[in-house]
Amino acid sequence: MKVGFLGLGNMGMPIARNLLRAGYSLTVYNRTPGRAGELAADGATVAGSAEEAARGAEVVVTMLADDQALSSVVFDQGVLDAMGPGAIHLGMSTIGVGFSRRLAEAHAHAGQGYVAGPVFGRPDAAAAARLWVVAAGAAPHIEACRPLMEATGRAISVVGADPWVANVVKLTGNLLIACTIEALGEAFALQRKWGVTPRAFLEVVNGALFNSPLYANYGGLIADEKYEPAGFRLRLGLKDTRLALEAADEVSVPLPLASLLRDHFLAAVANGRGDMDWAALALLAAENAGLDKGPM
Amino acid sequence: MKVGFLGLGNMGMPIARNLLRAGYSLTVYNRTPGRAGELAADGATVAGSAEEAARGAEVVVTMLADDQALSSVVFDQGVLDAMGPGAIHLGMSTIGVGFSRRLAEAHAHAGQGYVAGPVFGRPDAAAAARLWVVAAGAAPHIEACRPLMEATGRAISVVGADPWVANVVKLTGNLLIACTIEALGEAFALQRKWGVTPRAFLEVVNGALFNSPLYANYGGLIADEKYEPAGFRLRLGLKDTRLALEAADEVSVPLPLASLLRDHFLAAVANGRGDMDWAALALLAAENAGLDKGPM
Amino acid sequence: MKVGFLGLGNMGMPIARNLLRAGYSLTVYNRTPGRAGELAADGATVAGSAEEAARGAEVVVTMLADDQALSSVVFDQGVLDAMGPGAIHLGMSTIGVGFSRRLAEAHAHAGQGYVAGPVFGRPDAAAAARLWVVAAGAAPHIEACRPLMEATGRAISVVGADPWVANVVKLTGNLLIACTIEALGEAFALQRKWGVTPRAFLEVVNGALFNSPLYANYGGLIADEKYEPAGFRLRLGLKDTRLALEAADEVSVPLPLASLLRDHFLAAVANGRGDMDWAALALLAAENAGLDKGPM
Amino acid sequence: MKVGFLGLGNMGMPIARNLLRAGYSLTVYNRTPGRAGELAADGATVAGSAEEAARGAEVVVTMLADDQALSSVVFDQGVLDAMGPGAIHLGMSTIGVGFSRRLAEAHAHAGQGYVAGPVFGRPDAAAAARLWVVAAGAAPHIEACRPLMEATGRAISVVGADPWVANVVKLTGNLLIACTIEALGEAFALQRKWGVTPRAFLEVVNGALFNSPLYANYGGLIADEKYEPAGFRLRLGLKDTRLALEAADEVSVPLPLASLLRDHFLAAVANGRGDMDWAALALLAAENAGLDKGPM
Repeated sequence: MKVGFLGLGNMGMPIARNLLRAGYSLTVYNRTPGRAGELAADGATVAGSAEEAARGAEVVVTMLADDQALSSVVFDQGVLDAMGPGAIHLGMSTIGVGFSRRLAEAHAHAGQGYVAGPVFGRPDAAAAARLWVVAAGAAPHIEACRPLMEATGRAISVVGADPWVANVVKLTGNLLIACTIEALGEAFALQRKWGVTPRAFLEVVNGALFNSPLYANYGGLIADEKYEPAGFRLRLGLKDTRLALEAADEVSVPLPLASLLRDHFLAAVANGRGDMDWAALALLAAENAGLDKGPM
Repeated sequence: MKVGFLGLGNMGMPIARNLLRAGYSLTVYNRTPGRAGELAADGATVAGSAEEAARGAEVVVTMLADDQALSSVVFDQGVLDAMGPGAIHLGMSTIGVGFSRRLAEAHAHAGQGYVAGPVFGRPDAAAAARLWVVAAGAAPHIEACRPLMEATGRAISVVGADPWVANVVKLTGNLLIACTIEALGEAFALQRKWGVTPRAFLEVVNGALFNSPLYANYGGLIADEKYEPAGFRLRLGLKDTRLALEAADEVSVPLPLASLLRDHFLAAVANGRGDMDWAALALLAAENAGLDKGPM
Repeated sequence: MKVGFLGLGNMGMPIARNLLRAGYSLTVYNRTPGRAGELAADGATVAGSAEEAARGAEVVVTMLADDQALSSVVFDQGVLDAMGPGAIHLGMSTIGVGFSRRLAEAHAHAGQGYVAGPVFGRPDAAAAARLWVVAAGAAPHIEACRPLMEATGRAISVVGADPWVANVVKLTGNLLIACTIEALGEAFALQRKWGVTPRAFLEVVNGALFNSPLYANYGGLIADEKYEPAGFRLRLGLKDTRLALEAADEVSVPLPLASLLRDHFLAAVANGRGDMDWAALALLAAENAGLDKGPM
Repeated sequence: MKVGFLGLGNMGMPIARNLLRAGYSLTVYNRTPGRAGELAADGATVAGSAEEAARGAEVVVTMLADDQALSSVVFDQGVLDAMGPGAIHLGMSTIGVGFSRRLAEAHAHAGQGYVAGPVFGRPDAAAAARLWVVAAGAAPHIEACRPLMEATGRAISVVGADPWVANVVKLTGNLLIACTIEALGEAFALQRKWGVTPRAFLEVVNGALFNSPLYANYGGLIADEKYEPAGFRLRLGLKDTRLALEAADEVSVPLPLASLLRDHFLAAVANGRGDMDWAALALLAAENAGLDKGPM
């Protein structure tokens, strides 16, 4: 199967590598040319433009930073026009629900398919082909893309026939992580004021209640106040929370936790923490409790 | 070791049974006499009053509903006076931090010991001796109680020398569960409005992110809108949230999530849901999204 | 002075009438033709299109429902192109800050002026030429429009040289009203549960503290639960709160009250109250307190 | 009429003076003796204890700092016992609803009357006999106290027959002021980030919308960031918000705004602002927006 691949960032690069390993013929493009060159050694054809990478491909996979980047590639740099009738766009980026629907409409109008397939997992999971793919779209398009998705992840959950609902799921999942960060941040501030160390508290609640590696991971980062380097930048957490609120607004769903998180993300960005890990949300809880920023 | 045991409710009964099994000589008392009688067959001595159960005991274990019940037993029904110098009160109830400190002071004044040892786990975990005990108190008192605590649970976490910090940890742990319930409730409302089933969503986020039996359990209850019979009654969730806020107020810690939860608990109680499982917190999120109460 | 006037709704019609009364030569256009006809008797020239109304005008006044309506008129229906160099657009609609900036840029690019002049006041105040105009823009453009603004209102506050800051002020002002509504709604729910009538409470707090006709007005509507007909529709309150949050997001300002209001507006819309007066925000506070909807 | 008067703080002193001016025979007591001495020149009898001031009085007026101070005087220092059958306690302090009910019960049990008569107004209003008294109690007791209340204030609002509802009204009134402070603080932070001065914004919204001296007053304090000396200390604002939340909790009324305010008050106290004017609540909004504390 001939595959075009656009976006070779921290996530796109390992995904592309896994597709090459699985035997796909990949034509890749990245705005920063060096990144694409790295893949040539693995057998990828390097295209000089997004349009060129898309031309003639049966499936075009995109993994870009945000709505703006994807919109630029698809609409302004000619990918939509370059894709032939019957070709499928497999969009793996974390984008907004409204924009995902706009993509669905544009591809349908052009006689093309569109599968939204955002992923849960960080770059190390991508490298290990351990991503969890959330997919939505028309059944034949999903099936056509399934082998590709299988090559990148450990599981594929198909959540609906409208592509954009996969984006709803992805954004809400990220929201749940942010809720966990906020909850742990507040809980730790309370422990510290009472003289209980965050680590001791975390050991109890994760051992007794959650038994969750995610709680262990974020709890550990916050207990140690280790917010740099960022695993996932705080300003991206703000972006995703904003997109979740937009998705909720469209169908009239109040999300008090997301509203609270958005305000806390904004306060963090306003105070220069946008490039820290989003676990730094917990700094606000500590400061509002009168705790200094240093570890206990 | 001679042990007095007060409070044979859903939690106290299986704990007392495990102590008997472990070979302790137990004198038990319960306000409702029938409950104590059940234990006589297992070898317990049934006392006619709380005071009688406490008299001569090396350790008095209490497992009562709330501050008021425990205060009544200790201060009004003569337990404090009946306990001899050197005796230790092992308090396993979920009580307020201020009241726990008051107990510590009263026992210290009487030359007695006091260990706060609230537990995580439901009645079935108590029956299986699988509770997680959070203990705090003076080291010698902790050590004296350790075999008893070991007989009831799978783990004992000592979190400090001031007994009341164990109550801080217990209340905050419950708060984290309530946060999870609220977060799932809001997330599910959003999925339902977009046509994604809560079960499908839960499978994704727990599989991809949390991997937590607690998320599976509460997520399942909310997805199925199965709020009765209550595993843990909503009005007790309100009580514990209130106590967590009081503990936070005393040391000037804002807890925006707890504040939000308290308001949602109050709305639930005001609308007749106090005796449902506290997972019914999610009903408010559904209603505010314009969803009817029935399953999707 | 030759003036084009676009938008003859509840607010635009009385403003246009006041301009005619003040002696301006008005060419008017409204999507619904009948409305324009009403003004012909007052001396207005009725144009067949927005473009026609704008052609040759020294000032084009717009008073339309929202960003979309204004965008359609200015960009799609040819007003921008029809306006000559040096002509000024006086935009009185309540629109978003980002869109207002886009208008400023478009007019500057065309060698035209743009003054944002949103107003505080309802249709009856407009009819009585008692509006309060919040104006921003370049000083010469403000001065050129001042006589027109004076003909429509009792006061003109110039709040900055960047036109869009007038929209910030207008949106934030509306937010303050919404805060008042929410605060009164919660306060009344509490009084009702304690047996104090909202009217009695309102008399005290407005008499003793606020002395504000706005508190008297909204307090009266909520006390009497008189939410229809709408003076200002709830869904417009949601729209303006959303725009205020967008303006705040752009400059990284958390607005916890606005976030809370947005959620309550969404719950109201999700439950079929979008066309009630925005004072109906108070119904949610009453319901969450377990009060039925009827007056006490 | 023979009147005992307890509590000669910033509010009690001018009230006592007005009662003396109105011709009442006053026996006064204050914990700090010097304060009482000041009143002797005005004709007051200075008692050596609270009990002595209460003995033989037809009405005992109390104006103390909080529940604890009033409880100490009434229950521990013998005022309840010293008051004869038929005597009336006119309690003007801002106290909790639960404690007010406890007072009502104690006085009823002793065959005495109790009128809750908290006031709106600051010391300067007290000096000018311009307080607004919120009264509740049995009609005959109210009537007996009416002349005293008239001597201290410009208006008396009787809000119910249960004394404690007057405290509900007083606490909720203070809550509305706190809401106004918070709303202005957030609004000003937004203006400052967009380059609009708080004073300019305030002039517009108060002129166009609120027309309220309270908005002018607090808006001015926040615009000028003039938080010291305190007109009303922030930690008292926290105390009253806490009492309002307790009153709401008792009747199951969620108060999201009060919850939010309590968290903001706690953050302010945790950061050393407890003795500033409660308008300093606005500092948090400014800081969360990344603004430094200095005026713009």
